[in-house]
Amino acid sequence: MTIQTAVLIETLTALGAEVRWCSCNIFSTQDHAAAAIARDSAAVFAWKGETLEEYWWCTEKALDWGPGGGPDLIVDDGGDATLLIHEGVKAEEEYERSGKLPNPNETENAEFRIVLSIIKEGLLIDPKRYTRMKDRLVGVSEETTTGVKRLYQMHANGTLLFPAININDSVTKSKFDNLYGCRHSLPDGLMRATDVMIAGKIAVVCGYGDVGKGCAAALKAAGARVIVTEIDPICALQALMEGIPVFTLEDMVAEADIFVTTTGNKDIIMVSHMKQMKNNAIVCNIGHFDNEIDMLGLETYPGIKRITIKPQTDRWIFPETNRGIIVLAEGRLMNLGCATGHPSFVMSCSFTNQVIAQLELWKERGSGKYEKKVYVLPKHLDEKVASLHLGKLGAKLTKLTPDQAAYISVPVEGPYKPPHYRY
Amino acid sequence: MTIQTAVLIETLTALGAEVRWCSCNIFSTQDHAAAAIARDSAAVFAWKGETLEEYWWCTEKALDWGPGGGPDLIVDDGGDATLLIHEGVKAEEEYERSGKLPNPNETENAEFRIVLSIIKEGLLIDPKRYTRMKDRLVGVSEETTTGVKRLYQMHANGTLLFPAININDSVTKSKFDNLYGCRHSLPDGLMRATDVMIAGKIAVVCGYGDVGKGCAAALKAAGARVIVTEIDPICALQALMEGIPVFTLEDMVAEADIFVTTTGNKDIIMVSHMKQMKNNAIVCNIGHFDNEIDMLGLETYPGIKRITIKPQTDRWIFPETNRGIIVLAEGRLMNLGCATGHPSFVMSCSFTNQVIAQLELWKERGSGKYEKKVYVLPKHLDEKVASLHLGKLGAKLTKLTPDQAAYISVPVEGPYKPPHYRY
Amino acid sequence: MTIQTAVLIETLTALGAEVRWCSCNIFSTQDHAAAAIARDSAAVFAWKGETLEEYWWCTEKALDWGPGGGPDLIVDDGGDATLLIHEGVKAEEEYERSGKLPNPNETENAEFRIVLSIIKEGLLIDPKRYTRMKDRLVGVSEETTTGVKRLYQMHANGTLLFPAININDSVTKSKFDNLYGCRHSLPDGLMRATDVMIAGKIAVVCGYGDVGKGCAAALKAAGARVIVTEIDPICALQALMEGIPVFTLEDMVAEADIFVTTTGNKDIIMVSHMKQMKNNAIVCNIGHFDNEIDMLGLETYPGIKRITIKPQTDRWIFPETNRGIIVLAEGRLMNLGCATGHPSFVMSCSFTNQVIAQLELWKERGSGKYEKKVYVLPKHLDEKVASLHLGKLGAKLTKLTPDQAAYISVPVEGPYKPPHYRY
Amino acid sequence: MTIQTAVLIETLTALGAEVRWCSCNIFSTQDHAAAAIARDSAAVFAWKGETLEEYWWCTEKALDWGPGGGPDLIVDDGGDATLLIHEGVKAEEEYERSGKLPNPNETENAEFRIVLSIIKEGLLIDPKRYTRMKDRLVGVSEETTTGVKRLYQMHANGTLLFPAININDSVTKSKFDNLYGCRHSLPDGLMRATDVMIAGKIAVVCGYGDVGKGCAAALKAAGARVIVTEIDPICALQALMEGIPVFTLEDMVAEADIFVTTTGNKDIIMVSHMKQMKNNAIVCNIGHFDNEIDMLGLETYPGIKRITIKPQTDRWIFPETNRGIIVLAEGRLMNLGCATGHPSFVMSCSFTNQVIAQLELWKERGSGKYEKKVYVLPKHLDEKVASLHLGKLGAKLTKLTPDQAAYISVPVEGPYKPPHYRY
Repeated sequence: MTIQTAVLIETLTALGAEVRWCSCNIFSTQDHAAAAIARDSAAVFAWKGETLEEYWWCTEKALDWGPGGGPDLIVDDGGDATLLIHEGVKAEEEYERSGKLPNPNETENAEFRIVLSIIKEGLLIDPKRYTRMKDRLVGVSEETTTGVKRLYQMHANGTLLFPAININDSVTKSKFDNLYGCRHSLPDGLMRATDVMIAGKIAVVCGYGDVGKGCAAALKAAGARVIVTEIDPICALQALMEGIPVFTLEDMVAEADIFVTTTGNKDIIMVSHMKQMKNNAIVCNIGHFDNEIDMLGLETYPGIKRITIKPQTDRWIFPETNRGIIVLAEGRLMNLGCATGHPSFVMSCSFTNQVIAQLELWKERGSGKYEKKVYVLPKHLDEKVASLHLGKLGAKLTKLTPDQAAYISVPVEGPYKPPHYRY
Repeated sequence: MTIQTAVLIETLTALGAEVRWCSCNIFSTQDHAAAAIARDSAAVFAWKGETLEEYWWCTEKALDWGPGGGPDLIVDDGGDATLLIHEGVKAEEEYERSGKLPNPNETENAEFRIVLSIIKEGLLIDPKRYTRMKDRLVGVSEETTTGVKRLYQMHANGTLLFPAININDSVTKSKFDNLYGCRHSLPDGLMRATDVMIAGKIAVVCGYGDVGKGCAAALKAAGARVIVTEIDPICALQALMEGIPVFTLEDMVAEADIFVTTTGNKDIIMVSHMKQMKNNAIVCNIGHFDNEIDMLGLETYPGIKRITIKPQTDRWIFPETNRGIIVLAEGRLMNLGCATGHPSFVMSCSFTNQVIAQLELWKERGSGKYEKKVYVLPKHLDEKVASLHLGKLGAKLTKLTPDQAAYISVPVEGPYKPPHYRY
Repeated sequence: MTIQTAVLIETLTALGAEVRWCSCNIFSTQDHAAAAIARDSAAVFAWKGETLEEYWWCTEKALDWGPGGGPDLIVDDGGDATLLIHEGVKAEEEYERSGKLPNPNETENAEFRIVLSIIKEGLLIDPKRYTRMKDRLVGVSEETTTGVKRLYQMHANGTLLFPAININDSVTKSKFDNLYGCRHSLPDGLMRATDVMIAGKIAVVCGYGDVGKGCAAALKAAGARVIVTEIDPICALQALMEGIPVFTLEDMVAEADIFVTTTGNKDIIMVSHMKQMKNNAIVCNIGHFDNEIDMLGLETYPGIKRITIKPQTDRWIFPETNRGIIVLAEGRLMNLGCATGHPSFVMSCSFTNQVIAQLELWKERGSGKYEKKVYVLPKHLDEKVASLHLGKLGAKLTKLTPDQAAYISVPVEGPYKPPHYRY
Repeated sequence: MTIQTAVLIETLTALGAEVRWCSCNIFSTQDHAAAAIARDSAAVFAWKGETLEEYWWCTEKALDWGPGGGPDLIVDDGGDATLLIHEGVKAEEEYERSGKLPNPNETENAEFRIVLSIIKEGLLIDPKRYTRMKDRLVGVSEETTTGVKRLYQMHANGTLLFPAININDSVTKSKFDNLYGCRHSLPDGLMRATDVMIAGKIAVVCGYGDVGKGCAAALKAAGARVIVTEIDPICALQALMEGIPVFTLEDMVAEADIFVTTTGNKDIIMVSHMKQMKNNAIVCNIGHFDNEIDMLGLETYPGIKRITIKPQTDRWIFPETNRGIIVLAEGRLMNLGCATGHPSFVMSCSFTNQVIAQLELWKERGSGKYEKKVYVLPKHLDEKVASLHLGKLGAKLTKLTPDQAAYISVPVEGPYKPPHYRY
């Protein structure tokens, strides 16, 4: 719930939507943006520094339109709204079948326990709420790599309850927001949180996907020596072609000054790694969840001391060595926690995809064009998103002649590339 | 037919193949490489500086294994061998049906006239030669964007005569050879041909695909001011995010010092553009054919004077202005014509794909796995190509734990990415 | 008075000094740093957001050690303490000679009026105070280009009252702090103040000295298109060799998105320029004083409206066009006003020069080595500053053999370069 | 004796000079340039691939204007013409005093033996030749770091026989030719000599002066991982700020793929290092003489095998390991030996300094302005050289107002910087 989101909400409202909104991250709300939207445009359930309980309470409230109300469409970011509805429907079906309520104590995952608790309480009041919701829902458009992964799994399992448009894999999202957004926001977060000089430092970037590429480029440009860790040989070879060595975390853990996780996976930097780091090494995550860094291991390490230098910047001191490491944003996304996320221009590319997807879902709501599957936007809409952003930067496109278009077998107006084109 | 090709031939030979070889470009043969292979490993029909007639004669000879002979498989680069066989079969079928011979004068395309002449002559001697060839052929693996485009057209039309593997769209080909290969070979060609200082100059790169991205990166790194022309708004936006303005050729034609075409299209720099250029502007092509630059328009311009400064470096002087422009490699691929093509390491990535494709086609020759369609190599083979090249550069990959692999739903050994992943 | 200054104060204290301190900039004090030093180490007269009157009051207080007290040495940054003493002595001499007090109304410069007022008031209480101060002073070490320029003028005029060491022209200061410090702090300030996406934007950097070089490098690396303005043909040619065009401000004023002054001169961006800028163009100064930008012209522009978006980030709206421009830090140094100045590592290079200069001045206080002139530190001390910073970055130097040292005519232990060497 | 030199000769001729010319390097003559000049403009004694005997014979011939002839002025590059005259005069004085002829066998330096032989032979014919020459000479302008070092030594010893202008330390020479020239010519030489892919490789650059900075920048931009070796802590810290680690050669010798010497010193890469290198490691020098690399040690290594792959590209195979290293240009300047030296634009900066220096020496030949000392060109001439090159690159300078000029205490027309300014 940032200023960029606020403009997205205003856009949807201007297009005729009624909007209810919550955040996708406990630290990322900009309270001034939330306040402005709450005053002018939409119901907002979000503030900076929510607890996890508050977070899920907000999510539930944002979905609650009252009797006979929506939602018709979901704009999702990380997939938590979608998750809540799917889990809600599952619980309601089980309850209808067997009368059994969900049991929050069955799960070891602390956050999922909260989800089940919320569903359980709701079920006692209204046992058909999520079922009505999914029946009404025209579809969801999802923003992130992580949320999209969940959708494809449900699609594959046949458990997806409504159509979904994968925004993340629009070229104008993943190759812009993930790459250029992070190239901007990683140094921004590092500087605001620590004021550290990046030049001359050794920085390890775990993962060389779009996010990792953006981070590595920014660190290199700022004068750091960058090392990448990778599991994927192709991405590893890309790093090498850019002059970036590829080693394992173990090779570098005692030498590097800055560690950044960008993998979208879990258990990347463990407490056993952090123990070996140099004094005042900086550890942060710009990948997806706080489980890229072993925060649980760190918090429960015997004798560890935590000194909060300022909010979202903590020094954790190991008792054996008396060396401390600096962990940003409690292991959550540091660009959102320590800075202000991605800048407006690149978010505009992402959110234009969202708006186009919402329009498309709504326009086709009765046509049967979209089944309970995951779709990406067609390439001509992806190209349209890019087109809409060229004017601001003063660009002038060349136009194909009909003859040239025929020669390379594309329409004059595009789309210009085959679906497998990688940009 | 370069030293890299020579190693490819030796590899195929070591794997048990008998090989006959020709070049894919009239200027690109390295005679010492051809001589060494001719002595030791394979029949070679190629030399630097062929005429177009000689070129097609060579292609025919490379395909001619004598009675009862091959080929079983084709390694193609640009698709000319594949074209000759398809045109040959078409002519033989027409001849069988109607007794009509191909008529070279029916086409206005000078090069295609030569193709038809060769087929016509062959038809009089052996009217079933190409038909027998296609019956025997297990398949082709094709190297280039241009060749692949032809294959997909035949695939779409249902006219493809044997299975084809598209090497170009392996990540380890298009995102390496096209990008990093050209980043290396563009300045190499410019320097060898002209000795010009790139720093400080204004350079226009027409097209910002993989080849254009490599060229723009090289020119920028060398200190040029780079401007890109593009038809595709997404690629244009990528250029802008890298600080490269996007204008039309008309905007820049009178200002720039260096012009490079990388589009894979025709009619990019016309003689009307070249007239307006500054004295001693350099014009070259690293895209696909010599028709990116309007060589015909230049050659037939009334009163134009051509001064060959050295082979592949010509100054063309316009009579009205007495200004000259420098055209490299007669408009053909300047990295092959003026330098030595792409360096071995990146060619090894491409050619490992070729070898793997040939092995796959041969292994599955009786299995029916491959129909008369175009295929890309499966991702695990693409990743294997990358893996085989990491050791040379001293890289160490990280290994997923089974738990991590499960978390992101991939096998521990890969492949690690969904098919639509863009790298 | 930042955290880096705090460490400098602690260092001087640990070396045996008693310290009194004030800031050199009304916006740059970090109050937590000032508070910590005030508690533990020294008398501090500084807070964030001083008025100009407060600023000079602080300067006077920092110099006031009471009867029989210091200072013995001055660490100066911009030269204001040195200025106050020189102006004080001048006034005292005039007063002694003619009985005339300084007349603040004689000057049109608002800030200098404050200086004269302070001196005048002091004179009435103690007419020999600055004279005693200069008699006692062993010397000053000066940090900045601007302060050094004043010193050389006084040196040339024969009016310098005590020895001065020019820290700014130590290589380890001007080629590090000015260059790499600004490469870090310019984007830092831009991001914190505006959250603007730098990629894709057009940025004009006025001046391509060390500061301008650092700024241009940072903006380029972040994906901006950079244009430089210069008066000096050599610096202009350097920009061009890096692929950066050199135009005048007038050429770019209506096109660019970001304007940065780095010149050390005045009247660089005038209100007449600002009127022509695009809506929401960003204007900031990282050069020396707020007179690089015509703040007076802006503030007094008829009908102008100022909206303070947040402290140090103001939008000024022109009545004719209703377009607004964003001015950072009220035209003062934006890296100090909008961010936290330069990071510790590079400040450590600068401040090590300061400490070495102070030690040198003190050690030689009775020897007559330093006259009332401006000196730079000898090269072996400059090299020593660098040496002290290599270990932190894990560097290993090569050692000359005696034979090699003789061959290039330098001592084995350095210094290694002639005085005119430019690095 | 390259095409750039040819234009310098034509310029001097057009200004009224009669010119005789020789090369400064046995490999660097471009025979077509020499032939054109010999036909049209001047007496030339130079060809590609001279022996050392031939080289000094050429030098002597270039200085021999016959009875009553010149030279009046010397344009020197490396200082060999100046050396020959100084040694000649020394020998003639000794001969006059004692009747003793120089004894070539007294020196162990093979090249100096040749110099003494030539002088000895000349002495028997004309015992006053060099004495008359130095009496007539108005002065020399010297191009290189190495030549300048010799001049300053003679200046310091009081043995300099005529005035000398140090061109090398004009900003428009050392910060352009040395830096940007090498950034261009190092990859050019590597590519022409070896066709090696630079991306992904580990490259050690010995020395991080102007030449080393250019080389490191080029290698980094091409995708290599660059490591620098340095003796000077300041230059080392500069490398680190650019993200380049500083280690010793010993640390990297077994790991790196490419080694480049840029030090201006001797004995940098010894045969003991070369033995430890990886198979096919590339070793080259772009610094000054062939003694940066221990060519003597390599040539005399027991059992070593040399395979000349092509002229200036040799593979040296060590008998113990059977590993070979590739040495370029026999250890001499690889950009001259393997490519065509520096491009015209940057040479034009250097040579404009030469021409201006020659004009200055000639204009002041009777004025006594220049004594037997070493001078640099005044800054306004340095700025003039830059100015003359801006138009070609389309730059537009900003003009100071008189008010601004007064504010920073410089003339409106420049020079704009103090003498110690480092650019």
